[in-house]
Amino acid sequence: MKIVIVGGVAGGASAAARARRLSEKAEILLLQSGPDISFASCGMPYFIGNEITDRKSMAVQTPESLRRTLNIEVRVLSTVTDIKTDEKTITVRDDAKGDVYTKAYDHLILAVGAAPFKPPIPGIERPGLFSLRNLQDMDQIYAWIEKKQKELGEGDMRCVVAGAGFIGLEMVEQLVHRNMNVTLVEAMPQIMGPMDVEMAAILHSDLEAHGVDVIVNDPIASFAEAPKDPESSILTLKSGKVLPAAQLTILGLGVRPDTDVIKQAGIEVTPRGHIVVDETLHTSASNVWAVGDAVEITNPILGEKWAVPLAGPANRQGRMVADNIFLETKRKYKGTWRVSIVRSFELYAACVGLNDKLLKAKGLPYSVVHIHPNDHAGYYPGAEKVHLKLIFDPMLGKIYGAQIVGKAGVDKRIDVIATAMQGNLKVEDLAELELSYAPPTGSAKDAVNYAGMAAQNTVEGLVSQVQWTELETLASDPSTVILDVCNPGEIEGNGPLVPTALNIPLGELRSQLNEVPRDKKLVVSCASGQRAYYACCILKQNGFPDVQNLAGAFMTTSFARQTAA
Amino acid sequence: MKIVIVGGVAGGASAAARARRLSEKAEILLLQSGPDISFASCGMPYFIGNEITDRKSMAVQTPESLRRTLNIEVRVLSTVTDIKTDEKTITVRDDAKGDVYTKAYDHLILAVGAAPFKPPIPGIERPGLFSLRNLQDMDQIYAWIEKKQKELGEGDMRCVVAGAGFIGLEMVEQLVHRNMNVTLVEAMPQIMGPMDVEMAAILHSDLEAHGVDVIVNDPIASFAEAPKDPESSILTLKSGKVLPAAQLTILGLGVRPDTDVIKQAGIEVTPRGHIVVDETLHTSASNVWAVGDAVEITNPILGEKWAVPLAGPANRQGRMVADNIFLETKRKYKGTWRVSIVRSFELYAACVGLNDKLLKAKGLPYSVVHIHPNDHAGYYPGAEKVHLKLIFDPMLGKIYGAQIVGKAGVDKRIDVIATAMQGNLKVEDLAELELSYAPPTGSAKDAVNYAGMAAQNTVEGLVSQVQWTELETLASDPSTVILDVCNPGEIEGNGPLVPTALNIPLGELRSQLNEVPRDKKLVVSCASGQRAYYACCILKQNGFPDVQNLAGAFMTTSFARQTAA
Repeated sequence: MKIVIVGGVAGGASAAARARRLSEKAEILLLQSGPDISFASCGMPYFIGNEITDRKSMAVQTPESLRRTLNIEVRVLSTVTDIKTDEKTITVRDDAKGDVYTKAYDHLILAVGAAPFKPPIPGIERPGLFSLRNLQDMDQIYAWIEKKQKELGEGDMRCVVAGAGFIGLEMVEQLVHRNMNVTLVEAMPQIMGPMDVEMAAILHSDLEAHGVDVIVNDPIASFAEAPKDPESSILTLKSGKVLPAAQLTILGLGVRPDTDVIKQAGIEVTPRGHIVVDETLHTSASNVWAVGDAVEITNPILGEKWAVPLAGPANRQGRMVADNIFLETKRKYKGTWRVSIVRSFELYAACVGLNDKLLKAKGLPYSVVHIHPNDHAGYYPGAEKVHLKLIFDPMLGKIYGAQIVGKAGVDKRIDVIATAMQGNLKVEDLAELELSYAPPTGSAKDAVNYAGMAAQNTVEGLVSQVQWTELETLASDPSTVILDVCNPGEIEGNGPLVPTALNIPLGELRSQLNEVPRDKKLVVSCASGQRAYYACCILKQNGFPDVQNLAGAFMTTSFARQTAA
Repeated sequence: MKIVIVGGVAGGASAAARARRLSEKAEILLLQSGPDISFASCGMPYFIGNEITDRKSMAVQTPESLRRTLNIEVRVLSTVTDIKTDEKTITVRDDAKGDVYTKAYDHLILAVGAAPFKPPIPGIERPGLFSLRNLQDMDQIYAWIEKKQKELGEGDMRCVVAGAGFIGLEMVEQLVHRNMNVTLVEAMPQIMGPMDVEMAAILHSDLEAHGVDVIVNDPIASFAEAPKDPESSILTLKSGKVLPAAQLTILGLGVRPDTDVIKQAGIEVTPRGHIVVDETLHTSASNVWAVGDAVEITNPILGEKWAVPLAGPANRQGRMVADNIFLETKRKYKGTWRVSIVRSFELYAACVGLNDKLLKAKGLPYSVVHIHPNDHAGYYPGAEKVHLKLIFDPMLGKIYGAQIVGKAGVDKRIDVIATAMQGNLKVEDLAELELSYAPPTGSAKDAVNYAGMAAQNTVEGLVSQVQWTELETLASDPSTVILDVCNPGEIEGNGPLVPTALNIPLGELRSQLNEVPRDKKLVVSCASGQRAYYACCILKQNGFPDVQNLAGAFMTTSFARQTAA
């Protein structure tokens, strides 16, 4: 059996390795357009920032190591220029020698990935502008920084990162580590698109605290040559804003599937260019399979389709395709939940599933809770806040998604919630979830439990909520009273939630109930939301007819305000 | 409605708080036998070791704080001496004033906990011997250490920790931090009973590396007064071994439910003294509920019962009982999966579910995989090994349990597997589980994925395994060949797995197949198991009839051997 795999990084390399385990006799050919296979794609920003110093470690496998351990033939610098699905052949161009040849396959696995998007902006091909897709890009950026820092002095180099997604944020941190002046530019109204604005705001403020100039809601208009410096570029934004000349620009404007040849071959792709596959990851063409960033797969939360360019799913899809070629019982890919995490200085930000924006755009009903518990027992030193947003079906408690930002334990909580979603657990199950607890690592009631309890309380109608987005309107509504149950000292420290808020500390609420108006809508807040919830219970049970909890309370509201300001 | 709660730490305090949220009008009385409620029980070793320095933080709630925020009446130093379930009254002794009085209840919640076990060993009441159940114990141990270290000089104090469970291990670490000579004594053949011996061995060796004298398989015979020092004790073990005089002994010999009064009241308890409850956590007596360490609850993995003294489940049970008193729809407690973690110096050790020993004792069929991957991407600095044992049904792939030891990411992986178990996921689902990945926190294929893949490979018959326990017998069996596919340099560094092993590095196996005997049973090993699995695939597909993988390979075997030696 002849298996040809196009693309040798995450999905392609996994498919090759698994295929060899399942068959010693198969002829396996791996084609890679660039010079490297199976490289540490996600490590590239850290190499540029000198956190990773061993260049060799960036090449996880080499053609020689794959040949030796797996008996796989690897051809690098090989571009597939045509696929004939009826003949089961591909045409390959050897980019080193310039030869073109035809190769037959029994099974073809397309793991072509996605290429950085380069919109047709004037000046985008200028020197000093780089995308970061492969080790050659990485080496070029590294060399460019070395050269420019020598010319200018290390601290005087200016850099623009265009696009505030994963690679953008990782590059910002690393460029700051290398002592550059960094401006982050994002066309959308917020950084970190997979999150909602009030969660992204935590990162946004933190970037600014690290000296990064963050510009949102302002697309790039043009790059122009700087006066007297042909290797620096002046970036002009749609708003008319002009940035100082920068010696380096990183383009992190998202990716597009690399599927032109595939489409031309008559293999079905979506209008946006993603390869269409069935549950077994088989394409529209016989014996042609596809995996990784170029594929549109199932969104298991809504039963729709989406494209999610992440390394983990690509790896598992690669393994599954090999199984489906060799094993009798075909495996079915359940979908990608879109679990992701990024580090930005001391913070980690992680998401899973659907966000608020997406659900709103779809017009689906959903509820949100915001909590701010500690990552481990408060009495044990070093506890850090975990800011957690949980999004769920307001009636059924089905988990739609979660977003978490904090300094510690963020990866654990997103993985637990992601696993819960993959096990079809509901918010009530999160409330009951049994997790490990030792003072240095957790709490008897974990952040995930608290999120589940808060969500369960809303699903079961024990408490109703308003969101921070509604606060301003409510504060100016004469039929609403904002009740803040913080202690006076806290309010002095932070400023009032809204100037008109009525303040009764929780401990005094029962004895001061006569000061709370019964004929108004009450919106209750505190610092992080817990005491406000307690106060809501007290008020509701004392017959106050319209009581609502401000989700995430002062903390969530102040995050959102910091960035909006 | 009158609710009386007996016991005010984890389960009792949670029940009280939740009851108040659900009813402002209920009369809630919380009785606690000692002087403190809701204290940081799990933090006590860390206070003794000076990691926690704020004594106030150890009292998470006070009677006054509960009164103020929750309007709950708390009576400390109050011992329940009788329960009349037919009259719905209890008799309480005020241990401060000596008064005895009767109190009526509509609902009674028993959260009495478990008391440290003190077997009738000669000398167990001697000075300098302490259990650690409450803040008074903690303060006494702390004061004793201060006094003795002043008398003797800090580094000259000797200490025995009797019992190598959670509290024992935590105390050992903290006493070493306080510069003492520590001996850990355990009656069973291994430390850390919830784990299996080869996993506990990693901790065992590490304790020895930190200068702790670890004695296993040797129960305590007696404590005797040291010559010329009535405040030191000489411990003699069953084997006859006599330890040097120690100024401090911590008794961590497990706990027993504190249920004598409950049993006398005619409420059903098990032969071992645990309170029997139904799915709603209701006892055999009308309107009497029970939660926490004194209760026998469902083992959801086997559908049997067990008693699991852990803070997390106690808290959630407390909340559930309050719900079941006030809400129309009764909640059902699904059971306790026994998720636990302990830190021992730089290592964390965590478990969930059933272990090898327990399954063996029950005669149930099970399979085991051992893996040793990195906690995060190997190319990113600081990656640490995660030693993971996964136990599962050999036919159906149902997850029975897991054990993990390592320096980083242990809590995350145990929580992910625990969540998977609670979501009824199988080993094949672990292989496919989507988890977050950034180079500092994870890998594209996480340790949990690898464990799932290894297990799936055995369930589906792609590879068969032998365990380290079988190695010695197999090595001396002339019909078996142990094949080690390590590189020669590795074997020089570590010593051979067994002296008779045949060594063919994986990269040369295909070209040296003629050196591998076809008429023997082959047991294949390497350093951590991955290459051995690859080698098994090569051999099986080249027609070798009897090929088996040594689970966990050299690493697991050497852990087990270190301790056995």
